[in-house]
Amino acid sequence: MALVEPVTQRRTARLRALLHDPSLTFLMEAHNALSARIAQEAGFPALWASGLTISAALGVRDSNEASWTQVLEVLEFMSDATTVPILMDGDSGHGNFNTLRRLIRKLEQRGIAGVCVEDKLFPKTNSFLRADRQALAGVDEFCGKIRAARDCLLDGEFVVVARTEALIAGRGLDEALRRAEAYRRAGADAIVVHSKQPEPNEAFAFTREWADRLPVVLIPTRYFATPANAFREQGVSAVIWANHLLRGSIVRMQEIAERIRREESAAGVEAAIAPLAEVFRLQGDDELEEAERRYLGGPS
Amino acid sequence: MALVEPVTQRRTARLRALLHDPSLTFLMEAHNALSARIAQEAGFPALWASGLTISAALGVRDSNEASWTQVLEVLEFMSDATTVPILMDGDSGHGNFNTLRRLIRKLEQRGIAGVCVEDKLFPKTNSFLRADRQALAGVDEFCGKIRAARDCLLDGEFVVVARTEALIAGRGLDEALRRAEAYRRAGADAIVVHSKQPEPNEAFAFTREWADRLPVVLIPTRYFATPANAFREQGVSAVIWANHLLRGSIVRMQEIAERIRREESAAGVEAAIAPLAEVFRLQGDDELEEAERRYLGGPS
Amino acid sequence: MALVEPVTQRRTARLRALLHDPSLTFLMEAHNALSARIAQEAGFPALWASGLTISAALGVRDSNEASWTQVLEVLEFMSDATTVPILMDGDSGHGNFNTLRRLIRKLEQRGIAGVCVEDKLFPKTNSFLRADRQALAGVDEFCGKIRAARDCLLDGEFVVVARTEALIAGRGLDEALRRAEAYRRAGADAIVVHSKQPEPNEAFAFTREWADRLPVVLIPTRYFATPANAFREQGVSAVIWANHLLRGSIVRMQEIAERIRREESAAGVEAAIAPLAEVFRLQGDDELEEAERRYLGGPS
Amino acid sequence: MALVEPVTQRRTARLRALLHDPSLTFLMEAHNALSARIAQEAGFPALWASGLTISAALGVRDSNEASWTQVLEVLEFMSDATTVPILMDGDSGHGNFNTLRRLIRKLEQRGIAGVCVEDKLFPKTNSFLRADRQALAGVDEFCGKIRAARDCLLDGEFVVVARTEALIAGRGLDEALRRAEAYRRAGADAIVVHSKQPEPNEAFAFTREWADRLPVVLIPTRYFATPANAFREQGVSAVIWANHLLRGSIVRMQEIAERIRREESAAGVEAAIAPLAEVFRLQGDDELEEAERRYLGGPS
Repeated sequence: MALVEPVTQRRTARLRALLHDPSLTFLMEAHNALSARIAQEAGFPALWASGLTISAALGVRDSNEASWTQVLEVLEFMSDATTVPILMDGDSGHGNFNTLRRLIRKLEQRGIAGVCVEDKLFPKTNSFLRADRQALAGVDEFCGKIRAARDCLLDGEFVVVARTEALIAGRGLDEALRRAEAYRRAGADAIVVHSKQPEPNEAFAFTREWADRLPVVLIPTRYFATPANAFREQGVSAVIWANHLLRGSIVRMQEIAERIRREESAAGVEAAIAPLAEVFRLQGDDELEEAERRYLGGPS
Repeated sequence: MALVEPVTQRRTARLRALLHDPSLTFLMEAHNALSARIAQEAGFPALWASGLTISAALGVRDSNEASWTQVLEVLEFMSDATTVPILMDGDSGHGNFNTLRRLIRKLEQRGIAGVCVEDKLFPKTNSFLRADRQALAGVDEFCGKIRAARDCLLDGEFVVVARTEALIAGRGLDEALRRAEAYRRAGADAIVVHSKQPEPNEAFAFTREWADRLPVVLIPTRYFATPANAFREQGVSAVIWANHLLRGSIVRMQEIAERIRREESAAGVEAAIAPLAEVFRLQGDDELEEAERRYLGGPS
Repeated sequence: MALVEPVTQRRTARLRALLHDPSLTFLMEAHNALSARIAQEAGFPALWASGLTISAALGVRDSNEASWTQVLEVLEFMSDATTVPILMDGDSGHGNFNTLRRLIRKLEQRGIAGVCVEDKLFPKTNSFLRADRQALAGVDEFCGKIRAARDCLLDGEFVVVARTEALIAGRGLDEALRRAEAYRRAGADAIVVHSKQPEPNEAFAFTREWADRLPVVLIPTRYFATPANAFREQGVSAVIWANHLLRGSIVRMQEIAERIRREESAAGVEAAIAPLAEVFRLQGDDELEEAERRYLGGPS
Repeated sequence: MALVEPVTQRRTARLRALLHDPSLTFLMEAHNALSARIAQEAGFPALWASGLTISAALGVRDSNEASWTQVLEVLEFMSDATTVPILMDGDSGHGNFNTLRRLIRKLEQRGIAGVCVEDKLFPKTNSFLRADRQALAGVDEFCGKIRAARDCLLDGEFVVVARTEALIAGRGLDEALRRAEAYRRAGADAIVVHSKQPEPNEAFAFTREWADRLPVVLIPTRYFATPANAFREQGVSAVIWANHLLRGSIVRMQEIAERIRREESAAGVEAAIAPLAEVFRLQGDDELEEAERRYLGGPS
């Protein structure tokens, strides 16, 4: 499919524009090329390559068990299967400033539009797990990472988002604001402030104090019930639905596997699953069929 | 998760036993580690690593667009996330007899239980597409592949399944029987006879004539409505549900993506998607939490 | 090292210019990033990423035993470590026209300047081995490959070289000329005519008849004694030293390994091997040292 | 080549025996499959997969710029091309205890005999560079790594070597001894004490005090002039020639590249480089030629 659609660097400029646009943007999670394609077709203007869901799809923990090049390969397939910009969940940068530089160089080559880096240690622990292990990186060290990231770009439009886990680590609003400001001065293009509260109060306290110094991106996995207009009123730039396609697919695959197992037949689920033609369509088989006619001539 | 469960070669013996057992076995498709884990938890005693669904998940066509080592990496994650035997859809062997030998060596190392090789050319075309391009490999060349596969095994229990596409290619029952017999003599452990008819007549005509010279495996993607007992009456050894988890997940992801997009909120789908705790459970996070206590001591 | 030198697409234009320039160009073989760096430092304006030597360095046969993505990874490291254009030995394209398109897309992303594709089957056999297995691809099928290669380019400067093995396969000069002309019409940018004769007569017979319809590239592995001016007189565009760094390193590593083994000491070889400082220099460690000062501040 | 020689787990037992044997063993560095094959043919009973030379061959810095899975792939080719045991230079374990567990699981699958882990941070800095950045890991944290490594083994013979960089970091003999003892109690199979002095005094001060509580392995890159018998008198178990094949190949490749460039001809070096037949022999082409006769029948 990617064969007919040029993978250009312009996705970086589009992601940058979405973040700076005054209207609220929604990014949908994707964990492989197929889910990325589906999210794009549903109309999302940008995608979130989630560390949690990519690791879950790979069958490993969200603790940097997959190497950064294994994750990169997933990203490359996602990029090839889509045309909208992809923001990579870069965890803590997979090491130090230099590891992050290498990651970014490779993301640029593969047509990824930006990376989000969080101020935790390597290997990371998922933000919703083990509150007692959510240690933060030093501010100076993390600012060095952001500066290195910006300095190494070949395409100046590539987006570097800084994510602070200060609220996750229980360090409070002042620390979150202090860190966000330091990351802004170090060159970040946008700020993610993460919160695991079931209400948006904590996140919104941040946005109020922050006063739009840089675009703010939120990930309301826990405060999912917050209406879109509440984000708009806070001047939030973008909201990430960080894991929903994977979570939906888990339930459905469990139901189908259990039913086919129990009934010893796939007849009962046939009406509820995509026809083969839809699988082939999502793979972009039509382009290949036409190309075979063009380049292979008659049937071999 | 795999860290606490030894990946042993014994999966090969278990797959072999399932195929030779007089009772009917069902294999469920998996296209990544997560779907493999789900299929195992649903009770399937063995898995089918499908070429179609793995390529679809990767966003490429079922025409060997992913290299054999890229597919191998998917298989390795699947193997690490499960304990039941996995039969790999090896397409036409990714080249000649020597390519197949290399593939098998790597499958053995990664704990895969067997490979199914089909008598088509490289690169392959999906059996349900472009009937006019379904050319078959020469019988001698394909028998050479099977002999090479058997001769290179380190673990004699590794299963080599030969799949004939004679019916797919419109070459008729006699050709299918002639080829299956040749593959049996070359050392195949079981035979897949593939059919794209919406009824099992063609496949069952084969099983009747074949008379159980080797275990027969069927893939009723098109004749899904056939009852399990009909397979039993034909003495079929195993049935593969070759793409159902992927097809189910496509519909569900499309629904979720579209609804969240339309409603600008994830609130409407929250009840229908797996909770985060279920994602963490499927990743085996409990083992890591315990290991962190054991090896890291107090919180870092 | 690559971190400070932009990997641009402009290498494609430079390779194209070298081939069309009336002066004779020499390309040196490289089989990994280190040998590529050394060849560049010695002054070669372009590199040949050899299928034979890359496979030998990987410890596998020159018969497409390494998958195309494994070879691609070697190429990516080579590209990152250099700034001169690299021409990839693409064997027979690792499959059909579609496989070649995928390869080229990935080569473009990784900053490789061109690919050379030969009119043999997949998997290939090295041209100096087993004359009885050097079967040629059909002309129409191979021309389809070249057309597909040209049509899929994002960067129109990317170089597609067509290599005919007609002389290797014993098919004679007329067949070589007929094929080269067909490949030219299909869109090739240059022609490699390969010969295993110890004298250049066969190759020069081709260049005389060919009359410079497209740039001609020769690989005088066997007719190495031919003086440079003889190539110039024939109007040859480029000469590839296709395996010399690897072959030199083999002898030296064998000598060193045997001597250290025999003497139970490395003292005897110390003067003849590169100092550690030279290893660090070739790795570009100076850039990292400076970057650590810039981004890490004081010693950690 | 690996196709005819089983890759068994028994290499682990052989490496273990070599380390515990009272006689002095020499390990030769290898940085890819070819150099590994050459070192084995020269008679070395075991190989050292060096972090420095593998990174140099890949064109990156010895600072964990290559991901652990990229290094693993190099190791896999090395393992496939040899039969002697390989000890991997595992740097600081590529992260924490859990990353090390994952690495070890993959090393076991690929037939690697053991891993050497050093008490530095991630990403590491080469021991001969930037003395001011050679910070050590905490003793407790590093002992947790060793315990985790031992606990996760499927093959109890797999060798876990602990390397202390206390002398490199300028922390003195007492610290080196204290750490080595802690690592012994945590389950290490052998100790590497690294020194960058041009004389072995520092290392030998360690061996005298250590009194053979566990086998000691030394890496005399700087004190290369020490005679073998001096190591024997100290009861040293093994000596690693850690980078000599690569350093020898660098000089030779530089000479050849420069000479061919200057002379515009390869004629001058032909006598000094391996003949093509030697390249094919090292690749194990004879096995493939025979297999083609067996499995392909007549020439295709």
